This record gives sequence, structure tokens and C-alpha cells, in this order.
Amino acid sequence: MKTMFTDCRIVSLHTDVTEQQGYQVQENMMIAVENGVISALGSSLPSDGFTHVSLENRLVTPGLIDCHTHLVFAGNRANEFEQRLNGVSYQDIAAQGGGILATVNATRKASLESLIELALPRAKALISDGVTTVEIKSGYGLTVNDELKMLRAAKMVGREANIHVTTTLLGAHALPPEFAGRGNDYIDLVCNEMIPAAAEENLADAVDVFCEGIGFSKIQMQRVFEAALSHGLKIKGHTEQLSNLGGSALAAQMGARSVDHIEYIDLSGVEALAANNTVATLLPGAFYFLRETQKPPIDLLRKNHVPMAIATDFNPGTSPFASLTLMMNMASTFFGLTPKETLYGVTKHAAQALGLNKGQLAIGFDADFAVWDLSEPAELSYQIGVTGLHARYLNGVKANDH
Amino acid sequence: MKTMFTDCRIVSLHTDVTEQQGYQVQENMMIAVENGVISALGSSLPSDGFTHVSLENRLVTPGLIDCHTHLVFAGNRANEFEQRLNGVSYQDIAAQGGGILATVNATRKASLESLIELALPRAKALISDGVTTVEIKSGYGLTVNDELKMLRAAKMVGREANIHVTTTLLGAHALPPEFAGRGNDYIDLVCNEMIPAAAEENLADAVDVFCEGIGFSKIQMQRVFEAALSHGLKIKGHTEQLSNLGGSALAAQMGARSVDHIEYIDLSGVEALAANNTVATLLPGAFYFLRETQKPPIDLLRKNHVPMAIATDFNPGTSPFASLTLMMNMASTFFGLTPKETLYGVTKHAAQALGLNKGQLAIGFDADFAVWDLSEPAELSYQIGVTGLHARYLNGVKANDH
Ligand SMILES: [Zn+2]
Ligand SMILES: [Zn+2]
Repeated sequence: MKTMFTDCRIVSLHTDVTEQQGYQVQENMMIAVENGVISALGSSLPSDGFTHVSLENRLVTPGLIDCHTHLVFAGNRANEFEQRLNGVSYQDIAAQGGGILATVNATRKASLESLIELALPRAKALISDGVTTVEIKSGYGLTVNDELKMLRAAKMVGREANIHVTTTLLGAHALPPEFAGRGNDYIDLVCNEMIPAAAEENLADAVDVFCEGIGFSKIQMQRVFEAALSHGLKIKGHTEQLSNLGGSALAAQMGARSVDHIEYIDLSGVEALAANNTVATLLPGAFYFLRETQKPPIDLLRKNHVPMAIATDFNPGTSPFASLTLMMNMASTFFGLTPKETLYGVTKHAAQALGLNKGQLAIGFDADFAVWDLSEPAELSYQIGVTGLHARYLNGVKANDH
Repeated sequence: MKTMFTDCRIVSLHTDVTEQQGYQVQENMMIAVENGVISALGSSLPSDGFTHVSLENRLVTPGLIDCHTHLVFAGNRANEFEQRLNGVSYQDIAAQGGGILATVNATRKASLESLIELALPRAKALISDGVTTVEIKSGYGLTVNDELKMLRAAKMVGREANIHVTTTLLGAHALPPEFAGRGNDYIDLVCNEMIPAAAEENLADAVDVFCEGIGFSKIQMQRVFEAALSHGLKIKGHTEQLSNLGGSALAAQMGARSVDHIEYIDLSGVEALAANNTVATLLPGAFYFLRETQKPPIDLLRKNHVPMAIATDFNPGTSPFASLTLMMNMASTFFGLTPKETLYGVTKHAAQALGLNKGQLAIGFDADFAVWDLSEPAELSYQIGVTGLHARYLNGVKANDH
């Protein structure tokens, strides 16, 4: 399969975010794709033996990458949203069996098929925003079987919805009720059973931990990461969302691809990210939905050249927002990121957060494109509801979206 | 045309927002529609001579109403969004010919056809959120011909996109450069030429004024409203968005259907709304995009039983958000409105803000429905991106959306 895309206005994003090049639109470009990978770019390329596809002078960006989601789950927490706005406290909601355990109960009861069916419209919503790759975490099963069921569902969503899926085992998301008061025993289960089972069945690309006062300690996170690394899996963390435990620095030192949320990260944490080339993934949807006021330290991250990714964190409790361009807009509006930074955040830096060879229009990268009826890349995050998406290409093949 | 809708789970919204009834889901309901109007509702209705349509136990709400938009315009202000995030000041942007005058220049240059073509994707975005009626304002022409061109484009959008459109002449939106220093002369033009011309051609249902330090004074607003009323047009105002000039109270006393924004309204203003049954239209998109901190006085509005509507204010400068359910979510998240209040805000109260016989499932109201694959109404505003919209009906006829 050799395809030559012509008449492209490309936004290549192949350089560092601090450089001018890469983000500027290059007119009349050609992109050669062989076996799903970009083999050449230029204003004039030899194209004997290639099928020609004109993109008719439309804007072409790397396909967008949503590098942090909890897309697979059952149950509905609109009722909690309503209760909270009617003045019911978080404690009272939890006492009624609400909160994350409501989602865990519903997800445990759900069949593989129903999990897939529930996740598909969410994946399609992301697709309509130009997303070509989505990371999906487990974390609402909290038993070996239910965690594996979630990861299987995630992989099936990728096949059925025409989107690349990368999966993350988040067994250490919350302590299940049957382990109440026995956190270390649960971590044993994660390390000794969940991670080996997920690795053996090839169901997880990475392992994640929620390191927080209401989640797991830094020492527990370290044990989980050691088990993950020993099985050849990548690692990443939910860290410093609600307090500063130092989880980000430890995760970075252990080789985490990304640390996510990080509203409360401090200078030593940021320096650890910089030293280990760990991505800082910002999740403005949860910041907004929880009405947080502590912002991630953007200037410190910039000063230390830490790559910043942006993701939806799509989940029923704290970020029910299946729109990556809305998250880009919120990252600009709440955190002051420029449109250039947010575009890097959902392409080059999101790919880096996942350890994927994607997110840039450059030789050797996967030929995942989003093609837009837009004149400039800033329009992507500026306007919500009218995305201007014309088509998506996965490995050089047009996705049949409706 | 007599249609009997069966197997409906209805959210009728026919009662006052403070009552329980109306918002609670009624199962297994039938809705009889004759000549586009609801003629009966009940659990068992005689249906001889009716065509039967089962809604298959889906949730049915009144079609959503976006009661404040500037949907018709030309030009693109993503570049200003980007400049601002790169630290360029509003003053420098305005000095370069940016801001509202950039939109005015582009809109004046645009043909009727291109204005329609640009507005259609925006209308379709609203439609995908379940909107069946949209108000569209002029206000970027600022000459008689260009204002009428905008209103004609707005009406054509309604015909082409299968959505009810109600039009508002907003000649007094900004002072055009050719009238610099001659505000009263421009108001003469609005009163003596624009309003009569729009009324004669039946192009406007209402007249609006931007009453603000950077817009027009209370006295100028009063003159415009007097001219509008003398031509039989409804009136409404952009008031108290950035400061407290007392425009809301004056507009209410003159019979305005709604006053919009009202972040800075005071007690006497709220009391004037209550006394005149004027709707307070909240526009959280502009509040968000401009990073405002002064919120409308929700508790005061509640205490005085002022009906609150929610709208997108879709416009290129301060609210580029074509999603009414996102605005409902923001009204809850930023202003603390309950899901019930936001649903009233985009149905019953939005209809009242426009003086339309819509927004309720009750006898004698237009049979505009939104039909949802949702189990409860709070889901509508809780989750963004996955709307669950199944179909829209306008006057009892299914809209052919894709
Ligand atoms: Zn998360
Ligand atoms: Zn407005």
C-alpha cells in the first residue's frame, strides 16, 4: 500500500514546542505513506507507483490523541451531579453507596458486551473531534476478572469504532470495599495477580496508580510500578491532584511516561519530570468539574521544558466530557496555555505520554491524520461545537465515519 | 394532520420551577398533536383518526430553545484568541482593527449566500444538542442594508436547517466607525430607518440594545425601545454585563421579555424583573470565555421568583460555543443552578424570553419535542459530547437530521 497525499496544508509539529517551525502551516505539501507509515514529506515528491489522494488544500494535523481516559464503565452518575447541586454533601452521597463505588458495582455487574456498547458512543464523540488514538484505563473492576474484562472491552471498542486504543491497567484506582483496612493486601493482589494476568494476555500497554491521600501511598505506588516494569509494561501515575505527596517525582524517577493532573506538584517534582523526560498531562475537565482553584504550575513547567499533554480524563465522577477540543479550550482559558501548546498537548506530547510513534507529521511516524475545513490551527480549540473536521486517516487509510 | 405519540416518558415542565411536578418523569404517556399543536396528554387517550408513532419509552422533553445567539456573521477571530493567549492586549488587538469591528467589516463584505453558508454548520451543531428553536440577532452590519441582510440570512438558516428561527434586530450593538463621536446620530438611524425597515419587511420579531459603557446609554436604549414598541416589536436588552447602569430595570419597566447577561444587576434591578415578569437570561459561555469573576446574583433571582433562561450567546468574540447542553453544564458548575433550573432555562423560560408558545409539553403549546436515549433529565446537562439525542420533532413532524 503506497499512497501519496497531495494538496495538503500541513501542521507538522515535528519540532520542539518552543520553536516557530512545525506549527506554521506549510502550503501545497505532499505526504507519502508506505505500509501505514509516513515515508516522505515535501512540496514535490516522486510518486510512481503511489495511489494519489488529493486533500484539496485542507488543513492536515496529526490525528488527535486523547492520552488519559476512563472510557469503559457502566452506571450513571447524573443523579449525584444533581444531588450535589441540590446541596447534598459528598459524604452523604458516599454513605448512600454513591461515588466511585457506585461505578465499581455497576461495572462488576455489567457484561463485556454491555461495557462495549456503553463505551462506543463515547469513543464516537471523541472521533467526531478528530481523535485517532485513545488511551483507556481499567480501574472500576478492582478484581482480576473485572479488570481484565474492562481491558478486553477497551480493545474491542478500538476494533468496532475505528480508533487506535492503547490500554492501561489501573487496578490501583481505589480500594474495593472487600479490602477495607487492608490496602497492602489489595496491592499484593494488583502486583501478584492482576499485572501478571494482564501482561500474559497482552491486555495492557501500561500500568497506572492513583497516588493520593484518598488513593494509594507512594510506597504502594512504587510496589505496583516495580511489578509493572518487571513484566515489561510502561508506567504512569495519577499524582498531585489534590495534595503534594511527591508521587510525581518518584514516578518520573522510575521511568513513568507521564504524570497526570499535578495541580499540586512543586519545584522538585517539576525538576524530576524534566530530568526524566516525563510528560505532564493536564486534565482541565476535572479541574473545572470539581471547581478546583489550584492550577498546575504552567510557568514552572515551561521554564523547565517539561512537555505538557492535554486529555479529557473522561469518567463519570469528575470529568464527563467527551470532547478533546473542549479540553484544549479549557486548558487555554483556565491555565493560559496557547493554542500551539494545546495542539502539541493532544498530538506530539500525548504520543510521548503513551510511548507511541505518533503525533507528528514526520518521516517514520504513523500516518494518522485529521483533515480539517479550517484555515488555521488555532480554530481547532477556539470554537466548540463546530469542529470543522472533514476526515480522519488511520495509518494512511480513510476512516469511514458518519 | 393528527398524530398520537405513544410510549413516551415525558418531562412536561408545565409547572413553576419551584414545584416538584413537571420535572418528574411520567411513564407510558401519550401526546396527541393536531395541526402542529399539543391537543391532549394522558396515559390513555382516544385515538381514532390519529396516525400512531411510538417513541419506544424514550425520554421526551420540550425541544430545546437557544434564546440568545449571534449565529450569523462572517470572519474568524481565532487569531485574536491566539494573540490574547500570547499576551497581546485587547487594546493592541483593537488598534490592529480586531475586536467586534473585524466581524463588522467581514460581515458587511459578505454576501447573503455566504452568511447563510457560514451559519448553517453552527445551527446544525445546536440541532445535534436537541435545539428546535434558535433566536438569531443581527448587529454586525450596522447599516440598514447590512442589518437587513443579516436578518434575511437568519430566516434562511431556519428554512435550510430545519429549525425554528426567531430574529432580533440588534442595530444598537456597537457604534460603527463612520459614526465615531456621533452616537445619537447613529441611534437616529436605528430608530428612524432600521426599525421601520425591519418591521415593514417583517424581518424582526424583537429589538435588542447593548446597554453598557462601551455600548449605548440607558437614554439611547429607551429611544430604541420606544421606536420598537411603536412598530409592534418585542424588546429585550444586553444589560449589566460589565457594570451596573440600571438598564435591566428600565428595560423591564418598558416591557422587555428578557434582560441578558446581568452579572452586575442589583436588588432594585431584580425587583423590577420580578414586577414585570421579565426573564433573566444567563450566558455562562461569555462569563467563562472572558474569565469573569462577578456572577449573576442567583439567590436573589430565586428569592424574587425571576425566571432564569440559559443561552449560548454564540458569537465570535466572547462565546464561540455552539452547544446549549455545555451552557447548561456551565450554568450549574459556575453559577450553581440545579439541572432542573437549567432545563427550565432552555425550555419554558427560554420560550418566555422570546414570547413564544413553546417550551412545555402541555395542551395548546407547539409540538416541538426532543427525544432522548437517556434515563433521567439530569443526564442532559451532566455529560458533554454524548448527548443521547434520538430525534427532534418540530410541530409534531420528525426532523430529518443526520
Ligand atoms: Zn484519571
Ligand atoms: Zn449577546
